[in-house]
Amino acid sequence: MKFVILDNIRSAHNVGSIFRTSDGAGVAKIFLVGVTPCPVDRFGRPQPEIVKTSLGAAGIVPWEQVGDADAVLLVRRLRSEGVTVAAVEQTANAVSLDDFQVPENVAYILGNEVDGVSDALIKESDQALEIPMAGEKESLNVSVAAGIVLFKKS
Amino acid sequence: MKFVILDNIRSAHNVGSIFRTSDGAGVAKIFLVGVTPCPVDRFGRPQPEIVKTSLGAAGIVPWEQVGDADAVLLVRRLRSEGVTVAAVEQTANAVSLDDFQVPENVAYILGNEVDGVSDALIKESDQALEIPMAGEKESLNVSVAAGIVLFKKS
Repeated sequence: MKFVILDNIRSAHNVGSIFRTSDGAGVAKIFLVGVTPCPVDRFGRPQPEIVKTSLGAAGIVPWEQVGDADAVLLVRRLRSEGVTVAAVEQTANAVSLDDFQVPENVAYILGNEVDGVSDALIKESDQALEIPMAGEKESLNVSVAAGIVLFKKS
Repeated sequence: MKFVILDNIRSAHNVGSIFRTSDGAGVAKIFLVGVTPCPVDRFGRPQPEIVKTSLGAAGIVPWEQVGDADAVLLVRRLRSEGVTVAAVEQTANAVSLDDFQVPENVAYILGNEVDGVSDALIKESDQALEIPMAGEKESLNVSVAAGIVLFKKS
């Protein structure tokens, strides 16, 4: 099974796009950490930008809101249940996606558009995972990065 | 070498995101067909949405505007120069991305957000290429699809 953990993503557009991609990739559940906007707010109102960008997938893929402090516990729980947790982040000892063998059960953590995945969650993960870059810019849009890791098959 | 052909993409946001991704994937050139918005308009003015979304990559990755009629000639020329042209589109005889061996020289055609790649360009391509989908929705955002095909390594 595949899981996605969105660590304080700011843009509803990115969240909606990741819901659409996750549906296409067969993701079992998306965890929305901290300030990450949810498809439905705490008053039960749909978030229009997510509904629109997800093309309906926000009503299909299961999701759960998680507070920042509970996100550490979430990662520990997933790992204790046999899920490999990979933080998609450039770090000194990150594994290249080219060398990464996709486990049967995996959770990908994708981080904030500016700050990336929090140090606390990187520390709790099995590994950091780096998408090897050829160009002069050092990063990808987070929804594009989600597509690349989620559609890697082996 | 890798090339990208954008066939009548509507959204400047998508074009900007694809420039950013193409920079990261080492794309040699992006061809902007038909109504696809360009980083600089015909009066020499930067397109602000593309500049913003590409995070500067629109000033780095080479690009060329191509009319609809000339796009067919472009595909023929690339193929005559040994570039495999793959239309990223769901068709009856599309090859699954999982079974696709990435050629040394390849051009990916990505199509309009609603209508996809035009029949004329699919017909001129070496093959249609399909990203295998698990979910209930039948498509991905075009900038996410671009990331998935451009970061497939073998």
